[in-house]
Amino acid sequence: MSISLVINGFKKYMILFFTSPPLQPFPWSRCSVPKLKRSVLGFLPVLSWLPRYSLRDNALGDLTSGISVGIMHLPQGMAYALLASVPPVFGLYTSFYPVLVYFIFGTSRHISIGTFAVISIMIGSVTEKLAPDSNFPSLNETNGTGGVDLAARDAYRVQIAASTTVLCGLFQILLGMMRFGFVVTYLSEPLVRGYMTGAATHVVASQLKYVFGIDPARFSGPLSQVYLLIDICRLLPETNIGALVVSLVALVVLITVKELNTCYEKKLPMPIPIELIVIIAATLISYYGDLNSQYNVSVVGEIPQGLKPPSPPDISLWGSVVGDAFAVAIVGYAINISLGKTFGLKHGYKVDSNQELVALGLSNTAGGFFQCYAVTSSLSRSLIQESTGGKTQVAGVISSVIVLVTVLQLGTLFEELPKAVLACIVFVNLKGMFRQFLDIPALWKSNKVDLMVWLVTLVCTVLLNLDIGLAASIAFSLLTVIFRSQLPRYSILGRVPGTELYLDTDTYEEVKEIPGVIIFRSSTTMYYTNAELYLDALLEKSGIDIGKLLMKKKKKDSEQKRADKKEEKRAKIKVNWAFDQQGTGSDQDSEIGSYGDNHITQAASTGSESESGKSADNSTHTIILDLSTASFVDTVTVKILKNVCVFRHMCCLTLFVSTPVCVVEQLSIAGFFCESIPKSCLFATVHDAVLHSLRVHGDKDRPQYECVLDMSSTTKM
Amino acid sequence: MSISLVINGFKKYMILFFTSPPLQPFPWSRCSVPKLKRSVLGFLPVLSWLPRYSLRDNALGDLTSGISVGIMHLPQGMAYALLASVPPVFGLYTSFYPVLVYFIFGTSRHISIGTFAVISIMIGSVTEKLAPDSNFPSLNETNGTGGVDLAARDAYRVQIAASTTVLCGLFQILLGMMRFGFVVTYLSEPLVRGYMTGAATHVVASQLKYVFGIDPARFSGPLSQVYLLIDICRLLPETNIGALVVSLVALVVLITVKELNTCYEKKLPMPIPIELIVIIAATLISYYGDLNSQYNVSVVGEIPQGLKPPSPPDISLWGSVVGDAFAVAIVGYAINISLGKTFGLKHGYKVDSNQELVALGLSNTAGGFFQCYAVTSSLSRSLIQESTGGKTQVAGVISSVIVLVTVLQLGTLFEELPKAVLACIVFVNLKGMFRQFLDIPALWKSNKVDLMVWLVTLVCTVLLNLDIGLAASIAFSLLTVIFRSQLPRYSILGRVPGTELYLDTDTYEEVKEIPGVIIFRSSTTMYYTNAELYLDALLEKSGIDIGKLLMKKKKKDSEQKRADKKEEKRAKIKVNWAFDQQGTGSDQDSEIGSYGDNHITQAASTGSESESGKSADNSTHTIILDLSTASFVDTVTVKILKNVCVFRHMCCLTLFVSTPVCVVEQLSIAGFFCESIPKSCLFATVHDAVLHSLRVHGDKDRPQYECVLDMSSTTKM
Repeated sequence: MSISLVINGFKKYMILFFTSPPLQPFPWSRCSVPKLKRSVLGFLPVLSWLPRYSLRDNALGDLTSGISVGIMHLPQGMAYALLASVPPVFGLYTSFYPVLVYFIFGTSRHISIGTFAVISIMIGSVTEKLAPDSNFPSLNETNGTGGVDLAARDAYRVQIAASTTVLCGLFQILLGMMRFGFVVTYLSEPLVRGYMTGAATHVVASQLKYVFGIDPARFSGPLSQVYLLIDICRLLPETNIGALVVSLVALVVLITVKELNTCYEKKLPMPIPIELIVIIAATLISYYGDLNSQYNVSVVGEIPQGLKPPSPPDISLWGSVVGDAFAVAIVGYAINISLGKTFGLKHGYKVDSNQELVALGLSNTAGGFFQCYAVTSSLSRSLIQESTGGKTQVAGVISSVIVLVTVLQLGTLFEELPKAVLACIVFVNLKGMFRQFLDIPALWKSNKVDLMVWLVTLVCTVLLNLDIGLAASIAFSLLTVIFRSQLPRYSILGRVPGTELYLDTDTYEEVKEIPGVIIFRSSTTMYYTNAELYLDALLEKSGIDIGKLLMKKKKKDSEQKRADKKEEKRAKIKVNWAFDQQGTGSDQDSEIGSYGDNHITQAASTGSESESGKSADNSTHTIILDLSTASFVDTVTVKILKNVCVFRHMCCLTLFVSTPVCVVEQLSIAGFFCESIPKSCLFATVHDAVLHSLRVHGDKDRPQYECVLDMSSTTKM
Repeated sequence: MSISLVINGFKKYMILFFTSPPLQPFPWSRCSVPKLKRSVLGFLPVLSWLPRYSLRDNALGDLTSGISVGIMHLPQGMAYALLASVPPVFGLYTSFYPVLVYFIFGTSRHISIGTFAVISIMIGSVTEKLAPDSNFPSLNETNGTGGVDLAARDAYRVQIAASTTVLCGLFQILLGMMRFGFVVTYLSEPLVRGYMTGAATHVVASQLKYVFGIDPARFSGPLSQVYLLIDICRLLPETNIGALVVSLVALVVLITVKELNTCYEKKLPMPIPIELIVIIAATLISYYGDLNSQYNVSVVGEIPQGLKPPSPPDISLWGSVVGDAFAVAIVGYAINISLGKTFGLKHGYKVDSNQELVALGLSNTAGGFFQCYAVTSSLSRSLIQESTGGKTQVAGVISSVIVLVTVLQLGTLFEELPKAVLACIVFVNLKGMFRQFLDIPALWKSNKVDLMVWLVTLVCTVLLNLDIGLAASIAFSLLTVIFRSQLPRYSILGRVPGTELYLDTDTYEEVKEIPGVIIFRSSTTMYYTNAELYLDALLEKSGIDIGKLLMKKKKKDSEQKRADKKEEKRAKIKVNWAFDQQGTGSDQDSEIGSYGDNHITQAASTGSESESGKSADNSTHTIILDLSTASFVDTVTVKILKNVCVFRHMCCLTLFVSTPVCVVEQLSIAGFFCESIPKSCLFATVHDAVLHSLRVHGDKDRPQYECVLDMSSTTKM
């Protein structure tokens, strides 16, 4: 039982590593047992569910599910290995080791870890870039394909793939430990779907050579797919008829039976494993028909028997693959977590995004040591795993046992399998991705901005390849957020008669503006890209003319001097427009509601009836800014708000309502509130601010009234 | 008067060009005279104010202001020309032609167009990159500086600067005509100030060689400033003592008198033109002391007399300067508009951002034909122009007349001026920019995110130079917006007793949660980067366990079958927790307010008193999402909201309140509302939703009550 000792030792080490703060001895004294246990269970989820594994409830489901998935692993593993430009047997390895690691560390019960088309093609682009055919001229051997030392090339490609995978795994572990699981949120759904579709075109382009049996040149960098397609078209006259016939037959059989599977989904206990059947049949036909030598149909070739010992990755390669490894890490994780969360939500368990990162990273790192390439969960296999009754990751272990048996005993039987058949298997598995083109009409109807993200991502991915394309798409996707928040809808609010509700006057016909009071609201938070627009919109919507206000102020200042002399006389002359007919008795604080209501009704009727006197009486005396949509404050915002408050000195009162607490805090820190802008400008609701404004401007002699729930209470915090 | 004919023809053409829609004949029939007039006045603002120019009010102010600014133009023009790596006389041209163009097209009355340090150094980086000394080996002439054909080099540099300027001007005109004036909003204030400070370090680094009289190597690309400083340090032992002495004396004099100017600002009618005095004095000393040949102090050298005929730009250069030209266009415009808007706000007139772009673009394009380099408004000159009484751009014209006289008559007198003196003038003019380092403590106190933007911009600008640094800074600045909106503050709202106000329970101690009702609010709009967080926070804050809910639902489903049989019996057994003591008579629609109040008080007291029965009675029956901060909707948001609504089927009711109209529209388009999520889930206020919830869950037998102002009325739009 030395292995369990090793495992236990490793566990202890990892527990220490994960629970202790960095660079400090582990605080045993402070560590309570339940906390330690929680850490262990968090890091090794298998310990929390395997001991309680109920054979009666789960065993049968996991067994059938594991067998079904295992049968899918075999053709997919071999086919996707071609995408990654490594020999097929390494695809089988990839379907084996990482599954076992994920079984221990993973938190999702239903996803099937292993080879996946998009990740495979990403790895393939790295291997082909760093180990092109031209680097491996055949010396004196004759191996049939003319001038390329295939054995050396493939060995080097495997090493590149494994090194990239280890680096990718380390990135994932690192991100997981730094609790950076949130990075995946930058990959929004339309982006991921557009990216998948773009990647699918790369997959198709890379597999066409096997279908036609031709040998186009290799391209890398932007637009490489375009060049590749042009080269394939150029080579079409040299098509190998044998390969084409094999491909067409395989495609027809695969598509037909897959359609049958879909039609009779409910009647069949499990889908017909047509991919496996096609592979076996094609191998037999190829072997007995001798397709390779008779028709020059390219076959899989030597498959080594048994497993290989682990070997360390070639660290010297990391410098040249670091960008690709990071892209693989992010994309692989994004696919994994989105599938995992979907199943988690469906079956009601929690999938921990950071633990998933660690689990996937450990799977990749461990796999990389065993010459696997990067893995993630596959949609098709996961759906089968779930629909055939899989309940836990035990199904994954069973599937990997099937792969193990194949690798150990049956692998060599597939040596005569034509590569064209594997390419066809890849094609039919891409059906789901190409069906995503239906997103275009759907998004056109539902959300045009997301459609734009989808399309830009597709175009970027197709033209700029999978790494730069991803970066460009993410940048574009983030820019759409900026654009959206940069062009807000500005509105003037009015009161719904008989309520304390203030709504957009443009949308609701019933609402009435309060004369002299401008209630302004932006549909989004104000920050530097839209702050100028905010001020412009406020001035335009409210019809305030700064020039006039300035003139007015100057005139007022000069009048002030004259006025000082005959102040008493002036006080009698001045007419308080809204309060002429208003009684002065009933202003107890308990009657605020009805009092305010009267005020406003009064004001509204005055305003609407006396249109002639509008220009004289109806000049704006209060600006109320509804800041309920503000979520943060930057210096530009503070400046603009201060500018608005300048109006205050020009016979306008500026009030702020519904300001969120965090915004008030940030405004305070920014030194926004001062003697001329006291915190009493803040009101909890529009109605309170309107009441206050009418009170102040309606009757200047009364004492200033304290609002019921002034937001300045935030100073208590 | 052929010139005026040409100008009139040009005017007419431009009017046609700007007012007609593209590719269509000008619709004379549809064009009313006032509209045409408005277009003309918009495009040629000079026509709107010059005819009404009041000599009495403005002439004196404009004259003194023009003379003061003209006197500043002379030293600044020559000094900044060194920054642009062109001979000093071209700085004087730059202070002349563009000012006249801006006079016609500009909308700001107080800014002083002309040379500016940051723009000059940006142009200088282009000229030095494309025309390094090494490209101009001296053939057989001996011109004292050893091996560089200065005349050819300078001529080529002037051509590069002029071509870049024309392209920059065309960019600005294009942006202005496309109404892209808003691009400047991406340059937030902290970014611009950080950028200016970073640019100032470049200016200093580039001028040190004149101060020390050394000749360091040229560097370009990232980190070039660091290499330059290292090279200068290496060459320090070779310092030219003569140049250093001249510099130190000039610096001391300049700084002293500038400080005196500041101290006695109010007593002096206009500041002492110390820069001009220093230049004249230095020229005299240099001439009579023969500093150039005796002490090998580098002097300005040959200054051609008179103006040069216009010449077209070298279009073949545009390919290599396009990025720099665009950066110059944006930065120049940003400085111009921020200064213009500041003065506009101060003096109460409108500065049209798009017209400013066109005006600046025309100034640059026209200037470029006359070998000027790019211009913008200078802070120091504009402040002088305004403070010495300038009222209109006539001051600019007067200042350019002074420059013209100098160029025509006095230019050659400055040939013996030491370059070190010009470098010192540059230094003292940078004082304001270096004072911006005081932004650091100020921003530290007021806004840490903006401080980060400031610092990152400075570092990017210093290390990556002015073009890439600007792009990197803008990208970082936009990312901060994403980060800020990605980490919102989530809160559960509770009711302020006795009001219809619902506030954050964490901040306000007085508020009380309504038992069974969770009112959830995010401080920012929900979109793809924070949608997952929203759901997580909702589940955490509300304590909803999806697993338990699923179990409950399953149990309920199985119970349902049994329940169907004995439904009637069950109806009697079920206890409606909140309504036991509640009368059933007074539920007219007119009494909603008081009715609801009673309900909620009831519920609140029940919840707080019977803590023991909490787990049984107090299970959540309603989730109210306050979407008032939402400003747009993407597909991820729709998905998450639908997920929340899944709870609805698990004995929870989900209601949406305060949803902005535009968000409701977008949700409708996205197909969010369906049979299971009707539009009646929308409520105008939290209080309405709470009343509705208590009504439905308090008494299931009553008919579902229609809210007073249901947001579903938006369907009318």
